[in-house]
Amino acid sequence: MLSRLEEKTLNSRIIFEGRLIRVQLDEVELPDGNTSTRELVKHPGAVTVMAVTEENRMVFVRQYRKPLEKEILEIPAGKLEPGEDPEECARRELEEETGYKAKALKHVVSMYTSPGFADERLHLYEARGLAEGQFRPDSEEFVERVELTLEEAFERMAAGEICDAKTVTALYIWKNREIAGK
Amino acid sequence: MLSRLEEKTLNSRIIFEGRLIRVQLDEVELPDGNTSTRELVKHPGAVTVMAVTEENRMVFVRQYRKPLEKEILEIPAGKLEPGEDPEECARRELEEETGYKAKALKHVVSMYTSPGFADERLHLYEARGLAEGQFRPDSEEFVERVELTLEEAFERMAAGEICDAKTVTALYIWKNREIAGK
Repeated sequence: MLSRLEEKTLNSRIIFEGRLIRVQLDEVELPDGNTSTRELVKHPGAVTVMAVTEENRMVFVRQYRKPLEKEILEIPAGKLEPGEDPEECARRELEEETGYKAKALKHVVSMYTSPGFADERLHLYEARGLAEGQFRPDSEEFVERVELTLEEAFERMAAGEICDAKTVTALYIWKNREIAGK
Repeated sequence: MLSRLEEKTLNSRIIFEGRLIRVQLDEVELPDGNTSTRELVKHPGAVTVMAVTEENRMVFVRQYRKPLEKEILEIPAGKLEPGEDPEECARRELEEETGYKAKALKHVVSMYTSPGFADERLHLYEARGLAEGQFRPDSEEFVERVELTLEEAFERMAAGEICDAKTVTALYIWKNREIAGK
């Protein structure tokens, strides 16, 4: 049964099948009986990791982002391989991109990054017990590790160098815990 | 001059030009001289609004999201029209989707929702001084207003009904302020 707000798919056409995303154009019946189209980006999902060192600095990577045509500072992240366990993926990406191994990973929250047009779901983990591992980014990945205090991180956010949603979320979660004294 | 991490565009091809998004395939030269492709989604940008009532409840909309094939609870949001001022857009979307007019809007942060493949930039505003205005969603928009306390909102997040990045971010910002006593 359709809910009152549901959009029924009348037909679906694949526009583009890439290495990362699939683009699909769906014709839908709206709750009022009219029809419309929805442009959809299908994504395999991704993981991201909040990692704070013993010196109470969060670990970021500086990375060039082609869609933005600029370098930004983000917390480590990566896309899920087909069938990959998100926690394993988070562990792998953290070590590959930053050189840090985590003793334990804890799931914090999973969130859709842009539900208006994409199905990308991002799983946020918190890393505990960092130790030096092996920095080994993918062959097509060029990243640098950066560590910042909470205050420095908020300054970088105000300056626009930290400017992506997952990293902004992570900073507020971190600040929350600092304020709450946990 | 190229930075050390920059990717140089060798050529760019438009794959799809939709009503909302444009999909583009760029061939790039990587920092190590190799070439690769980047799949890019161009988006006009969007605004979103944190609005808390005098009874200290945040205002959400329940909405069916075709990319997720389900209804979720989100803070009000909408895409920017060409040349539109983000603050004006935020004011308009808040009233259209929730029926609330805001006395003042304050910019909180702007963030890229999914920098790995999309250039969508989302401007988050905080609404102050809510008053009843006129609920008038777009003809293709079917939404319901929901108001929740901080505690209820975190319960909905734990239950997965609040599950998108902007709303998760807004909840942590709100919690932050409550903890800090502001």
